[in-house]
Amino acid sequence: MFSKPINHLIKNLEVLKEFDKNENSENIELLINSIIYTKYENSKVFIYGVGRSGYVGRAFAMRLMHLGFNVHFVGDTTCPAIGNNDLLIILSGSGETFSAVNILKRAKELKRDYDYKLKTISITCKKESSIKKLSDMHIHLNICNDECFPMGTLFEDIAFIFLDVIVHLLMKRLNISESEMKKRHCNLQ
Amino acid sequence: MFSKPINHLIKNLEVLKEFDKNENSENIELLINSIIYTKYENSKVFIYGVGRSGYVGRAFAMRLMHLGFNVHFVGDTTCPAIGNNDLLIILSGSGETFSAVNILKRAKELKRDYDYKLKTISITCKKESSIKKLSDMHIHLNICNDECFPMGTLFEDIAFIFLDVIVHLLMKRLNISESEMKKRHCNLQ
Amino acid sequence: MFSKPINHLIKNLEVLKEFDKNENSENIELLINSIIYTKYENSKVFIYGVGRSGYVGRAFAMRLMHLGFNVHFVGDTTCPAIGNNDLLIILSGSGETFSAVNILKRAKELKRDYDYKLKTISITCKKESSIKKLSDMHIHLNICNDECFPMGTLFEDIAFIFLDVIVHLLMKRLNISESEMKKRHCNLQ
Amino acid sequence: MFSKPINHLIKNLEVLKEFDKNENSENIELLINSIIYTKYENSKVFIYGVGRSGYVGRAFAMRLMHLGFNVHFVGDTTCPAIGNNDLLIILSGSGETFSAVNILKRAKELKRDYDYKLKTISITCKKESSIKKLSDMHIHLNICNDECFPMGTLFEDIAFIFLDVIVHLLMKRLNISESEMKKRHCNLQ
Repeated sequence: MFSKPINHLIKNLEVLKEFDKNENSENIELLINSIIYTKYENSKVFIYGVGRSGYVGRAFAMRLMHLGFNVHFVGDTTCPAIGNNDLLIILSGSGETFSAVNILKRAKELKRDYDYKLKTISITCKKESSIKKLSDMHIHLNICNDECFPMGTLFEDIAFIFLDVIVHLLMKRLNISESEMKKRHCNLQ
Repeated sequence: MFSKPINHLIKNLEVLKEFDKNENSENIELLINSIIYTKYENSKVFIYGVGRSGYVGRAFAMRLMHLGFNVHFVGDTTCPAIGNNDLLIILSGSGETFSAVNILKRAKELKRDYDYKLKTISITCKKESSIKKLSDMHIHLNICNDECFPMGTLFEDIAFIFLDVIVHLLMKRLNISESEMKKRHCNLQ
Repeated sequence: MFSKPINHLIKNLEVLKEFDKNENSENIELLINSIIYTKYENSKVFIYGVGRSGYVGRAFAMRLMHLGFNVHFVGDTTCPAIGNNDLLIILSGSGETFSAVNILKRAKELKRDYDYKLKTISITCKKESSIKKLSDMHIHLNICNDECFPMGTLFEDIAFIFLDVIVHLLMKRLNISESEMKKRHCNLQ
Repeated sequence: MFSKPINHLIKNLEVLKEFDKNENSENIELLINSIIYTKYENSKVFIYGVGRSGYVGRAFAMRLMHLGFNVHFVGDTTCPAIGNNDLLIILSGSGETFSAVNILKRAKELKRDYDYKLKTISITCKKESSIKKLSDMHIHLNICNDECFPMGTLFEDIAFIFLDVIVHLLMKRLNISESEMKKRHCNLQ
């Protein structure tokens, strides 16, 4: 029961190691540097995704908060305006999610109308998509789907883990310990 | 159809004017000052409520963000740990909502264990309640219920407006214009 | 402090009584009947709004659940596909909220592509708007703004109460008691 | 950069295959049967978790909706009362999350006071915990933590995938195709 789908997942996880190869590591470096840059610029990170991709994005946003970033999930109660030097990260398996496309269009308008330096990075499992076209930078998670998992499941699973590795790399790069992160963890619920 | 319930609501809204009387204005002053104090102390405001009271709390939290406060709704994606000098505002019609009671108990533990100066203010429509007992300060919305509105409806309606008047008073006290608030308004959705 | 903004709010609430006049009551009847119709057709109600209008919409959605309707807030975890005979209610003060406009366009596509009988009703405080144009039916809350309340505050306050009166009218029309509603109220938090 | 954390994750994923062994498969059978049972009893599934465990729970709840279950995430806008024959699934890495403990206590009260047949299943990565003690059934995800991932990360990653395998098994057991699930997928965002 478990062996077949787990093996399929592991096969897809193995692919993430390709990011360690020189020819693929550039985008990872750019993603990490773009996030770190907001700390030094006193600017903000915005995360967006719909449905299960949105929950993956929220899980990542929470860890960025634990790492001390000024981060918001688009649509949350206290999410402020995006502005100059801010970073917007969009998650979408298909690369065609309606509202994610519309938010990227809106970000483009804000860049044009207010001359904001504002970076957009999208993460999808498609080589080409509307969302890739609208983003300044794109990370392609090279998923090999099969019949085990319905719809975007594999993208969501792999993206969840991919972003947890990014958190791991940010901890190392910024020399932030787990205990420092724990101090920022919500302590009321 | 509308006249009877609207008249009943207006009768309850009239009661809010009692807060202008000298003998009742003290708590309003304390609420406003406690919120403003977080701005000068670089500390945070936390809002919590369950169900419809939670939506009233979220609507208030959003306006506090527009006013430039560092504010979080408990349980939101990027809600951090509560700490020294922070303010926790709890909304509960009955004053007995399970999870609101538990969050106030948790805040009491944090005050005791870490010696945090941490203020809790609750807003209910009951003179006495578990939540009042657990709070440092309590604001009583003196609702006169009748058969028009089910369950906590009147509390939620009156609390929504009460907190919008608090926003109005904060704007005046801090000399913050509507256009300054608009600049902080989420601009991606 | 309270008297001036409360008086301004009451003035705006008085305007809701205009819906009792014969020439204005038609849309209220249609709204109530459209909601009730979903019960008899075994179809669903979808509610959407952004920001504070979204919280007003969520508060209404919760009451519709208490009244026994199959109701969903668009974007919630377990919100299903909209389909034939379903009802979509959109809240937007300005009538121009980006994502609300896009959801109405999407509903129009679904009607065209799948030949769904699918009704859309919007509630705004503008006589004319993109959202009104895209909706099958429109309810205009005739707000008279002034300097007391920033941005959409008055719309949100009045819409909250307007929808609570609709709940009151649904209770009477369907002969549903408060105690029946309480039985459906979330009992775990 | 990626190889070390990915290898650590894969090592933990391999452990999930242990559930295929006869001596461990019993709880998986019970979990799957408890979920399926709600379909035949016309009863409901409730999911709860806090923070990142909550997002894992929401992702699972969404798939249960796609599979045609009557499912709710506790605290969502339209989440109704839990009642007779319903199923409550709690996710918590530590097995000690305050509000999850409180919700299980509340479920116990409801069982006692109303004589509800109401099943609670918890999923944690601890052999023993308050949450395990309060649950009718417990699934232990046998995580081997190391320095790669902070706090509950590994639990959340493995639980996300574990529950996606449960979805895969439910699809097979109920003979539900991906295209049937897609038809229920939210189509407005």
